[in-house]
Amino acid sequence: MELLKKKILSEGEVYEGNILKVDCFLNHQIDCVFMREIAKEFHRLFKDEGVNKILTIEASGIAIGTAVAEEFECPLVFAKKTKTKNIAGDVYTTPVESFTHGTTYDIMVSKRFLGEGDKVLIIDDFLAIGNALRGLIEIVKQSGAELAGCGTVIEKGYQHGGDKLRNEGIKVESLAIVEEMNHETGEIVFRD
Amino acid sequence: MELLKKKILSEGEVYEGNILKVDCFLNHQIDCVFMREIAKEFHRLFKDEGVNKILTIEASGIAIGTAVAEEFECPLVFAKKTKTKNIAGDVYTTPVESFTHGTTYDIMVSKRFLGEGDKVLIIDDFLAIGNALRGLIEIVKQSGAELAGCGTVIEKGYQHGGDKLRNEGIKVESLAIVEEMNHETGEIVFRD
Repeated sequence: MELLKKKILSEGEVYEGNILKVDCFLNHQIDCVFMREIAKEFHRLFKDEGVNKILTIEASGIAIGTAVAEEFECPLVFAKKTKTKNIAGDVYTTPVESFTHGTTYDIMVSKRFLGEGDKVLIIDDFLAIGNALRGLIEIVKQSGAELAGCGTVIEKGYQHGGDKLRNEGIKVESLAIVEEMNHETGEIVFRD
Repeated sequence: MELLKKKILSEGEVYEGNILKVDCFLNHQIDCVFMREIAKEFHRLFKDEGVNKILTIEASGIAIGTAVAEEFECPLVFAKKTKTKNIAGDVYTTPVESFTHGTTYDIMVSKRFLGEGDKVLIIDDFLAIGNALRGLIEIVKQSGAELAGCGTVIEKGYQHGGDKLRNEGIKVESLAIVEEMNHETGEIVFRD
């Protein structure tokens, strides 16, 4: 998506430790008008897959997921990272190792919101090693729902999490794939 | 908002311990088409306040905030609850006591995304005692921005957090105010 690549080049910042900071429009401050363009692109890519539910993970996936779900005119379900008083009853759950935080946490989705007959599009902001997506895919499997595919805004191609999922036959669409980035020069190179 | 009250009565569930469960459309599964109606109502209520930024808190505020920010054609900023590698540099921060979790946590917003000249509408899903809103108001104060007001989807009127804020001169608009609820009968009574 050319508009996204331009936005990453003009507003993104590369930091030491494999960090591409895009918190000015994607995951702290959200450019909600731009998010609509992102959502339309995901709709274009997955509109023929029979999607009836969008699944994402808190927190930064929610902004994108909300816009995407509105395009598909279907509900968004977001996986929670901590067990709260307000998530009672049976849940699907699986551990996820966080690349960002260096910890492992459990994600969970209430069984009431996902099950047989659902066709699920998983949406997230970033795809690197793919741990969060694999956790969400595991939740879909547990529920008996069918996976339509995964859509992520920015993929770090050089970490190959997306390629591994594609090699397993999963439809993975990333709107921008970063092939190289250099925190010393600030250079970002996209996959064609 | 009549549509919201109907939805709470038909889909909400009352549980012991002051819990109004609306996770089927508001804070676990999100009805994104309905969220657009919510957003339009907040826009109607605050459109003359000169709002140029929406502020909310992760996680469930993000879905509503995204839709509201799109109506106002302005950015959404969401306060984060934990310090991550990806939030570098100076932040505004304040402690918030969580009614839901029974703990105190710090919320933070990067100084880059809020400051003098901003006019901020705070959006959240629930208003009970008002701790989360007060935390967000404190962040706005620290930043030097001006507060346009607070919009919440459901207010638990009998906990009086909203009334206290209104008495302090803050414009607080809740789309449904629950005056009474009974977990034995399931009855929910709204404020007129």
